[in-house]
Amino acid sequence: MSVNATIVTIGDELLIGQVIDTNSAWMGQELSRSGIDVIRRFAVGDEKKEIISALDAARSISDIILITGGLGPTKDDITKHTLCEYFNSTLVFDEAIYEMVKGFFDRFKRPMPESNRGQAEVPDNCIPIKNYNGTAPGMWFDIEGKVFVSMPGVPWEMKLMMKDFVVPRLTERFETPHIIHKTILTQGIGESLLAERISDIENDFPPGFKLAYLPYLSSVRLRISAHGDDVATLQHTIDELSGRLHERIGEYIWGYDDDKLEAVVGKILLDRHKTLSTAESCTGGLIAYRLASVAGASEYYYGSVVSYSNTVKKEVLGVRDETLQKSGAVSEETVREMVTGLLSAMKTDYAIAVSGIAGPDGGTPEKPVGTTWIAVADREKTVTRHFHFPGNRERNMDLAAINALSLLRKFMLGTLKNS
Amino acid sequence: MSVNATIVTIGDELLIGQVIDTNSAWMGQELSRSGIDVIRRFAVGDEKKEIISALDAARSISDIILITGGLGPTKDDITKHTLCEYFNSTLVFDEAIYEMVKGFFDRFKRPMPESNRGQAEVPDNCIPIKNYNGTAPGMWFDIEGKVFVSMPGVPWEMKLMMKDFVVPRLTERFETPHIIHKTILTQGIGESLLAERISDIENDFPPGFKLAYLPYLSSVRLRISAHGDDVATLQHTIDELSGRLHERIGEYIWGYDDDKLEAVVGKILLDRHKTLSTAESCTGGLIAYRLASVAGASEYYYGSVVSYSNTVKKEVLGVRDETLQKSGAVSEETVREMVTGLLSAMKTDYAIAVSGIAGPDGGTPEKPVGTTWIAVADREKTVTRHFHFPGNRERNMDLAAINALSLLRKFMLGTLKNS
Repeated sequence: MSVNATIVTIGDELLIGQVIDTNSAWMGQELSRSGIDVIRRFAVGDEKKEIISALDAARSISDIILITGGLGPTKDDITKHTLCEYFNSTLVFDEAIYEMVKGFFDRFKRPMPESNRGQAEVPDNCIPIKNYNGTAPGMWFDIEGKVFVSMPGVPWEMKLMMKDFVVPRLTERFETPHIIHKTILTQGIGESLLAERISDIENDFPPGFKLAYLPYLSSVRLRISAHGDDVATLQHTIDELSGRLHERIGEYIWGYDDDKLEAVVGKILLDRHKTLSTAESCTGGLIAYRLASVAGASEYYYGSVVSYSNTVKKEVLGVRDETLQKSGAVSEETVREMVTGLLSAMKTDYAIAVSGIAGPDGGTPEKPVGTTWIAVADREKTVTRHFHFPGNRERNMDLAAINALSLLRKFMLGTLKNS
Repeated sequence: MSVNATIVTIGDELLIGQVIDTNSAWMGQELSRSGIDVIRRFAVGDEKKEIISALDAARSISDIILITGGLGPTKDDITKHTLCEYFNSTLVFDEAIYEMVKGFFDRFKRPMPESNRGQAEVPDNCIPIKNYNGTAPGMWFDIEGKVFVSMPGVPWEMKLMMKDFVVPRLTERFETPHIIHKTILTQGIGESLLAERISDIENDFPPGFKLAYLPYLSSVRLRISAHGDDVATLQHTIDELSGRLHERIGEYIWGYDDDKLEAVVGKILLDRHKTLSTAESCTGGLIAYRLASVAGASEYYYGSVVSYSNTVKKEVLGVRDETLQKSGAVSEETVREMVTGLLSAMKTDYAIAVSGIAGPDGGTPEKPVGTTWIAVADREKTVTRHFHFPGNRERNMDLAAINALSLLRKFMLGTLKNS
């Protein structure tokens, strides 16, 4: 009793890499949560022969074949006609879908272009799926015991179809086993050392339970996965294994599953009725953006001064000209003055200040690219840390943001030593 | 004379969607530039059977098979052993690779964990590829006329291997035809209307030339692709087609190929020796982050005040309490005062201010979620625009950032009308 799916994504833009395939990851998560195992993913171009070959391969290994892309109104979109041919069906005009497409343009008070009219035609052997965020309908085919679903490639449109129609209908149509994952989020220890520290626990994993290491920037995610029929037993064992890991490496753990560091930090602030502001040089607003991405952040996050130029450091944050002259913009003294100036300008309980050299230019022998100073503070004390990140511009910005948020978390929890 | 590749990505995390596959897109771009057509992508889990089945399928259709993932030092990484079995080869200890792995730990002054020692063993029928950013070597197999390359899944490690070793060697090993793409970046017109406006030009496309529409947020990218042996002819025809499209829809075009809107805006500022600052409420630092991501941005970008709370709007930007009381934080009056306060605090030539309701909460019947005001200004005049974005929080933030940068671009070029 195992139900599996293959995802087929269609579009030349995926193969030549013009578009990053975020759809498959999202679909994988949704399906996995519903007990459907994604066992394979294919990406193919907008070519009939390629699409048919992928469909053949997918149906030979999977119960469910989910297809995205190639449903637009333009000439390069051939998925619908290809499916029609593949299933020997005929296109028929669907009144309800036509009303939906027309309604989409009416809503935005725009005339319907002629090319969108054809979108109301669907194969006669499918159940059309309404698209509330666009004009291309989805299609559900139930053929010889296998379900094929074709959806638009626009993430916003596909996601609503999946949630509203496809996933509920799939779990009704198939009897699904349970797949459970628990992911432990760590920071501050490398993959190999982590593996050594927990090797005896990993060796104890019962059959059907797997441990995976997913390193990313300066973090490692540990994912425990389990398959089985009895969800209570699975959950119990996963909790037990996770508990043993927590006992061993708790100091590095900052969250679980889909936790985001900015949300973990936000929750601490919210629980304590405290407020936060940030002053960012090399991260250029990334810390602010991450914090602001959390719904409800305005409750505790006051804002940021992105002090890219020294003018702003001086005028808005009150960093002294003398400090900038003597120690430089990337120095312990500067981040100390930034964080102090910020606390008094923003009037928050906590503050973060970051200044570094993200690269590619701006490095010197004493302060190479990657050199970064971070300060975290409340109204009583300031703690600073020095880093030398090994990345390119983008990566150094990411690493600075992660480490700044991580430092603040520890600072608020009282687990960060003064330095 | 056409050389094609299949990308095989290995890792359960890809199938369950815990990791978004950015590697394939990047590899697709690199290969495409070198005249190698990616015709298929497979993603499979960390299971021997699955990996072998994908390798079989890939070699049956492609000259080149690029494999990423599953090379780490931990138990869940089985790619190397699977390849060894697949090619009937034996693992041998490689002194040079051992020195490289050890050197990696020496560089960071850390002891080498025992599990990393095994990474110096490689199949006897491969050419090992040095990894300068990590510990797992890559592997190059040339088997029965087909090339298989196995690389780590960590993007940072894979990319350097591709650039340094794999791509140069592939173009040496195979005679590659020319694949040329040109992408036209538009904003402010929908996919269907765009297609109607240019349908006669599209119908005139010569054989071997394709046009694709890639809608994304409030933009549409138009990609012209061509295959052939004579690069000069291809380039000439692409330029001609692109020129005809520019004549027809030039008002919507803001860039080409990999141009980024923040870099296009940056270049205008740099060319004119002008400076910019931003004041962001609902975008929470996203505009700053996008601007700061461009290398060299510190030449023209001074920084941002992320005025998430009204306190910051008042204290740092000088928005009057009366304005906030009467018109609200999301209003034309507020963004006008934000942009004026910003220009005087930051002392830049241009400024952007954004205030909106990103959601999910905070909407009212008069100002629903998505309501956004944007102001762009120089020292002489201010132009404001009102938007009602249809998205969720993340999407509304993205849409506000894109539209703010797009407005500034037109403002600087003098193509934006006062309102």
